[in-house]
Amino acid sequence: MIHQAAVTRRAAVIGGGVIGGGWFARFLLNGWDVHVFDPDPEAERKIAEVLANARRSLPSLYDVAMPTAGKVRFCPTVEAAVADAEWIQESVPERLELKHRVMTQIQAAMPRGALIGSSTSGFKPSELGAGVPHPESVLVVHPFNPVYLLPVVEVVPHASVSEESITHALETLRSIGMMPLRLRREIDAHVADRFLEAVWREALWLVKDDIATTQEIDDVIRFGFGIRWAQMGLFETYRIAGGEAGMAHFLAQFGPCLQWPWTKLMDVPELDDALVKKISDQSDAQSGMRSIRELERIRDDNLVSMMRALKGRNWASGRTLREHDERLRRDETPPDWSQPVVTVSRPVPIDWTDYNGHMNEARYLDLFSSAADRFMELIGCDVTYVAAGSSYFTAESHLQHIAEVRAGECVRVVTQLLAGSGKKLHLFHRLFAADKAAAEGRLLATGEQFLLHVSLETRRSSVPSEALQERLRDIESKHAALPRPGRLHCGQRD
Amino acid sequence: MIHQAAVTRRAAVIGGGVIGGGWFARFLLNGWDVHVFDPDPEAERKIAEVLANARRSLPSLYDVAMPTAGKVRFCPTVEAAVADAEWIQESVPERLELKHRVMTQIQAAMPRGALIGSSTSGFKPSELGAGVPHPESVLVVHPFNPVYLLPVVEVVPHASVSEESITHALETLRSIGMMPLRLRREIDAHVADRFLEAVWREALWLVKDDIATTQEIDDVIRFGFGIRWAQMGLFETYRIAGGEAGMAHFLAQFGPCLQWPWTKLMDVPELDDALVKKISDQSDAQSGMRSIRELERIRDDNLVSMMRALKGRNWASGRTLREHDERLRRDETPPDWSQPVVTVSRPVPIDWTDYNGHMNEARYLDLFSSAADRFMELIGCDVTYVAAGSSYFTAESHLQHIAEVRAGECVRVVTQLLAGSGKKLHLFHRLFAADKAAAEGRLLATGEQFLLHVSLETRRSSVPSEALQERLRDIESKHAALPRPGRLHCGQRD
Repeated sequence: MIHQAAVTRRAAVIGGGVIGGGWFARFLLNGWDVHVFDPDPEAERKIAEVLANARRSLPSLYDVAMPTAGKVRFCPTVEAAVADAEWIQESVPERLELKHRVMTQIQAAMPRGALIGSSTSGFKPSELGAGVPHPESVLVVHPFNPVYLLPVVEVVPHASVSEESITHALETLRSIGMMPLRLRREIDAHVADRFLEAVWREALWLVKDDIATTQEIDDVIRFGFGIRWAQMGLFETYRIAGGEAGMAHFLAQFGPCLQWPWTKLMDVPELDDALVKKISDQSDAQSGMRSIRELERIRDDNLVSMMRALKGRNWASGRTLREHDERLRRDETPPDWSQPVVTVSRPVPIDWTDYNGHMNEARYLDLFSSAADRFMELIGCDVTYVAAGSSYFTAESHLQHIAEVRAGECVRVVTQLLAGSGKKLHLFHRLFAADKAAAEGRLLATGEQFLLHVSLETRRSSVPSEALQERLRDIESKHAALPRPGRLHCGQRD
Repeated sequence: MIHQAAVTRRAAVIGGGVIGGGWFARFLLNGWDVHVFDPDPEAERKIAEVLANARRSLPSLYDVAMPTAGKVRFCPTVEAAVADAEWIQESVPERLELKHRVMTQIQAAMPRGALIGSSTSGFKPSELGAGVPHPESVLVVHPFNPVYLLPVVEVVPHASVSEESITHALETLRSIGMMPLRLRREIDAHVADRFLEAVWREALWLVKDDIATTQEIDDVIRFGFGIRWAQMGLFETYRIAGGEAGMAHFLAQFGPCLQWPWTKLMDVPELDDALVKKISDQSDAQSGMRSIRELERIRDDNLVSMMRALKGRNWASGRTLREHDERLRRDETPPDWSQPVVTVSRPVPIDWTDYNGHMNEARYLDLFSSAADRFMELIGCDVTYVAAGSSYFTAESHLQHIAEVRAGECVRVVTQLLAGSGKKLHLFHRLFAADKAAAEGRLLATGEQFLLHVSLETRRSSVPSEALQERLRDIESKHAALPRPGRLHCGQRD
């Protein structure tokens, strides 16, 4: 399972700013050797900063190890950087005459058959090609920041680039994890930046006219349509909104609105029958293989999964979810310590199921882990206690999987304290599905856990606070009266 | 832990299309009683469909159980629906005279002090208020589809609404899990739809002019800036792009671009010193408490987490990640069956860590579960075998947690077959951090797992195929020669 690419490939990165640095990191971490040229004396430091960001985030995207990173060389000239490169990525500042000069230098020194990708956000390939000796090696290859994470890249070849070269360019970009999108025709600013520019112009008006602040504009985007656009774009989203009546019917309603003053940007095309048909045909080709109901479910599952991901980061809509969790928890009744304690009561979320259609086995431990966290909180080992430098770490867990459970079902964990003296905490959890037929519900699994109290500074076991010990002694004596599980599996190291 | 809201609150939903249905579901599943009026004879069926979507997705957002759903009543008249409601949500078609008529009916029958939220996407509150007897109860409360999932809602009160009522409205919306955004001034189409309209107009041009298809436009959005906008908006994103030089410096570069033909939508404001200062001051207030480096890390962690969430759904950028996983796996060497088999080799991703700063304990089982999946694949219990109706389900797991591991570290699982005859599969996994100091790495945990071969139809244990049994016998005999773990914990039911 050691990755050994047959031959190490080599890229040259010309211009090492935020964009060039992002390219550098993406090639390097995908196993390419990368040669860099940037006349800025600070270039090496700046690129190292981008690479540090990429190293901590890019490998996280994958569920296999990435190849061994390639070798880096900072070169004193453009010529030295490109001499043995098969791919040259040009990311110098957006001045056409500068791009012409640098590309001419590149073409004089690069190997025969090498390709030049230009990161330009504005210039058309015809403009780039007009000032260089070999336009047949020039493609617009426009990425998005951060280049090491975002997959899309707009590819617009010069008219003289061969189909073979284009195919090779697309395959090269895929080989470093990207999603190349070949545009059919060249246009100022390609496609994505035309939207960004339109949004930017409208945003300037809204701030200038005191309708909204930058914060409010950002919030209305990221708590709303921004989440939708991370998974479906404009047309698939509207197709769903239009429902079973279809895209053409939906579009017909839009005709009059285009004359309304809903933006300051008023140069609108006529939404005539031909344009309605064109859009609805393209939409059918794009999404017609799925019913509206199916698209709705896909959309909702995507939204739930992404918002839950942001919940893990406590950011944007994820923070709103945490706040609502807190609001819902306020109504919880305090535990009855004469019984096993309810430590979890929740639905099984959509993103916890696997290819077998049931809750993934790892989530059973997730539930027992949450149950232990909640138990700790209830006995006073809470956020404040942890912030003061101590916590419990799990040393051992034993799970018995008894029955399956599916997304949407409500589950409950009840926790019994088996032992809680000294540094040890020995818990027994029972997981039930909240099945109305049985009083307790349907038993899904049991989890036995053995935890140790630790100092978060030394990462070694330590004695809990006196208050915590006293609390545990009290619960231990109450739970000693409860029926205990049969055979125990944890707490005896080999 | 049973949720008992002190008093059940009641909402009326007037108009039960996609938007009204979404409001209905959000109120209902947050414990409100909801009365509905919609003259469409199909309304009850349509609302039931939206509710079904909401029931399968909304509770997934939360890590606690939602309250018991409220009671539903479909009413024959507007008056009956609003009679005892404290909140009336109006979502009738976008015709001003219809909205005036319905709101006048509502106001004649609703309780004193009740508030009317209008879902209008286009009309200003002054326009709505001009045609009703009590404008002091009218607010624009504009949500986004799907209303039951997306948190943001634009709130624009009529000028005569009291501050007390506005505060109450915002609190009510928060109580059903929303993120109300109160706008400072009324404007046609409020704020979000101005952006959507600008993007829509540009998209119509791009399709009309054959620059891009609907699919290509959707892809350039969802594989690129759409993901960024799900977590930071326009200004915070550009603040990061601008780097340490600051927002004002960044903006200054934009001045000339505004005259470039980067969109067909050309009514642009002048980016003078006053506007630059206004934007950069607002951006400082919004994001100035964090350095650019800190914002970059937050952005990257968000992007990684969301793209991994989409990976779980095999959709959009998540599908690109899976494809790259496959590409990286192609270089893996086949296993040496005379040794424990390498079943996992991967980095610990950012979204696997918890508040203790190390990999969450549930992820240890996740790794062992992946190891078992990979082992099954290697012995021929692969996608094809599972599709034919059989698989292995885990009956029991025992984990010993030995050391911590942090995000970004590379880990490896090696798996030993303890027993594989009949329906049983008994595995022993060792998890190592790929530490270069030790040949094998640092031992992080061990995992013993006992699995049973099952029929996916009956969900009961069954005998594996002859080929699979033969394969297992062969590996069993090879692994019998390897040193075995000391004490075993699984495979003996109590």
